[in-house]
Amino acid sequence: MVGSVTTATDSNHRAREDAAARDVASPLGDRRDRFLLPERVIYLDGNSLGALPRAVPDRLAQAVTEEWGAGLISSWNSADWINLARRVAQKVGPIIGVPGSDVHVGDSTSVTLFKTMVAACRLRPGRTVVAIEPSTFPTNGYVASAVARLLGCELRWCDPADPTAALDEDVAVLALTHVDFRTGAMFDMGAVTGAAHDAGALMLWDLCHSAGAVPVELAEHGVDFAVGCSYKYLNGGPGSPAFVYVAPEHQTDLDQPITGWMGHAHPFDMDRDYAPAAGVGRMASGTHPVLALSALDAALDVFDGVDHHALRTASLSLTDYFIELVDARLGGQLEVVTPREHARRGSQVSLRHDQAYGVVQALIDRGVVGDFRTPDLARFGFAPMYVRHVDVYDAVEQLVEVMELEEYGRASYAVRNAVT
Amino acid sequence: MVGSVTTATDSNHRAREDAAARDVASPLGDRRDRFLLPERVIYLDGNSLGALPRAVPDRLAQAVTEEWGAGLISSWNSADWINLARRVAQKVGPIIGVPGSDVHVGDSTSVTLFKTMVAACRLRPGRTVVAIEPSTFPTNGYVASAVARLLGCELRWCDPADPTAALDEDVAVLALTHVDFRTGAMFDMGAVTGAAHDAGALMLWDLCHSAGAVPVELAEHGVDFAVGCSYKYLNGGPGSPAFVYVAPEHQTDLDQPITGWMGHAHPFDMDRDYAPAAGVGRMASGTHPVLALSALDAALDVFDGVDHHALRTASLSLTDYFIELVDARLGGQLEVVTPREHARRGSQVSLRHDQAYGVVQALIDRGVVGDFRTPDLARFGFAPMYVRHVDVYDAVEQLVEVMELEEYGRASYAVRNAVT
Repeated sequence: MVGSVTTATDSNHRAREDAAARDVASPLGDRRDRFLLPERVIYLDGNSLGALPRAVPDRLAQAVTEEWGAGLISSWNSADWINLARRVAQKVGPIIGVPGSDVHVGDSTSVTLFKTMVAACRLRPGRTVVAIEPSTFPTNGYVASAVARLLGCELRWCDPADPTAALDEDVAVLALTHVDFRTGAMFDMGAVTGAAHDAGALMLWDLCHSAGAVPVELAEHGVDFAVGCSYKYLNGGPGSPAFVYVAPEHQTDLDQPITGWMGHAHPFDMDRDYAPAAGVGRMASGTHPVLALSALDAALDVFDGVDHHALRTASLSLTDYFIELVDARLGGQLEVVTPREHARRGSQVSLRHDQAYGVVQALIDRGVVGDFRTPDLARFGFAPMYVRHVDVYDAVEQLVEVMELEEYGRASYAVRNAVT
Repeated sequence: MVGSVTTATDSNHRAREDAAARDVASPLGDRRDRFLLPERVIYLDGNSLGALPRAVPDRLAQAVTEEWGAGLISSWNSADWINLARRVAQKVGPIIGVPGSDVHVGDSTSVTLFKTMVAACRLRPGRTVVAIEPSTFPTNGYVASAVARLLGCELRWCDPADPTAALDEDVAVLALTHVDFRTGAMFDMGAVTGAAHDAGALMLWDLCHSAGAVPVELAEHGVDFAVGCSYKYLNGGPGSPAFVYVAPEHQTDLDQPITGWMGHAHPFDMDRDYAPAAGVGRMASGTHPVLALSALDAALDVFDGVDHHALRTASLSLTDYFIELVDARLGGQLEVVTPREHARRGSQVSLRHDQAYGVVQALIDRGVVGDFRTPDLARFGFAPMYVRHVDVYDAVEQLVEVMELEEYGRASYAVRNAVT
């Protein structure tokens, strides 16, 4: 017995050394050092809430104490709060393959989706259908339904396996999520966008689960609109503001429905009539959230100098490794539902199990944080900026023990929390 | 000469002692100690951006470092982020005379106005007019216009002197600003709301320039809806989230247009179809801004134990004193455009002058911060929580010198900044 344990330990040791060697070879180098991560936690939930970039606490303290507290109203000029949303947009642009001047940042993802969908539909006045696919994040369906109702359009649910089959001459907008929040499956942005354009429709991509984790090349693919949140792989903090991209050719005629003073061409003229700002600035509505944007502004510096290829290489290496270990150690017990094909995979891996909620909770109790998505998925996000191969290795070791000991069946996991 | 200077100085000394005595007698006592205010600044712009409450920096640091950084995703449960918007609403409620359970907090003021106006109009489906008055903050007009267009309604501009004259059987919603942002004039909430109801219309009040500075008794007056920002007299910080009140009798049928997952009855069921949450919770759209709400949550504790009467007494004492000093020292040079009648005055005083921009800038250079509103108003806000009578006295002394020396005519004030 002692001998076999030693052998297993030696083998484990070698395997973990192999994982550590992969980390040394990572094209993202020591980017993890730019984050403040809790000890004794393996965090595989950056696809739900990104980790805290090291620069954020000081920046936010400065925004509060110096800018707000000491500078008061003058900070709109002296700290350039007035251009803060634009400065943040400049940092988002390169991450999604477009100039920052075509990006606006400010409202929640839901609100941004709403404004963008209405504006997109209005650019195709002769068409009466908004097409989405049912595996998208629920909000997207709720918002599309609300927009269709307001504009007197029809909501069309596509087949997730081939959403382009739903395209015809009635479709004003095809709105899809680039990476599926449940399965991590990724659409071919170029092919789908091309098909939408061939049908005369506009293409709106939701980038919540791709921006900052996989290469996104909106301009290269001729995308019309894209919306994404900033609190997942962009690490902006809980509930941080969403971004929207509007292709230059649509900006002049863009007509979004929440016309607040900050989207006016001359807000401080206080005109009675609305005149939209030039360019993407007209996507603004109210006064932008300065504290939240200050945190996001500092957070985005983590991406400074990171190219899309390096990010993708690191991400695929992590998800490949996780899948490889799960296959080897847990094949048959947990189904990998995430596509194995690189071109169709985001930066997460989801495992199916009847008691997935218990699996996730047992792992959390062991310090491995993933999350559960109803009804039967254990979801693991691999934020390439700070997740290491040794984390993947250790996480699978814990998962093996959870499965061996059937910890997922504990009575305490019968009552589900609101958020896992 | 020396004798007369001494006499003036003695007189000034006595006058300032009188101001200080008024401060000692203030019903708000030492509430000012709960703020971090810069030295050598007299801040009369809390009606644009409220000062920094002392409790905010530590609370925000905790939210960032402990809750986000160390707690990560688990803080949705362990730090109860999931109920943070509701906890903040509980603190807003008493300030506007309603239970916190009828209040929602989360989006920008513009977005909140949009959602509320659409929802209000939908409650009066047979009526086709949205009525507002033209002296309101520009956003309110822009949003009302956008809502009218979306719903196929007409926008009707009322006479600011008597907006109720515009009421008839076609008006679905009368939307007014309680305290005018330019002049500080205040509507009679009870009388106007009663007139709207007599005409079968719903009443929506904008409380941006009243909540936290003057008594607001929404329930007592039977108000249907109210929206307000939290970064003025509520001191939530730059761009902090807005609140909305929905009267209980409208909550069951409330149908707001931006249906995001956080307004769903069961967000984590991830249902494809939208089912609104019970009560005012359905006003939510996206994931709420946790950092901004944490700051606001701490800021609102300043109001703990402050009653409406004390707030009003302190506010009127300050604005009365300012008007009295301006009349005495500057009568004829600057016109007080704010109503002198208490019942019609908010918590600001606006002075008209052809070179109001220069007046405001010269005062700022002397450490007295008010603001300019186009075309000819110098606006001074008296946040009763932290503005003292000695500040009023000192501000007027500075204003007298600005006028005597005609500093408002300096060439450097010819170019206007975006925000004053």
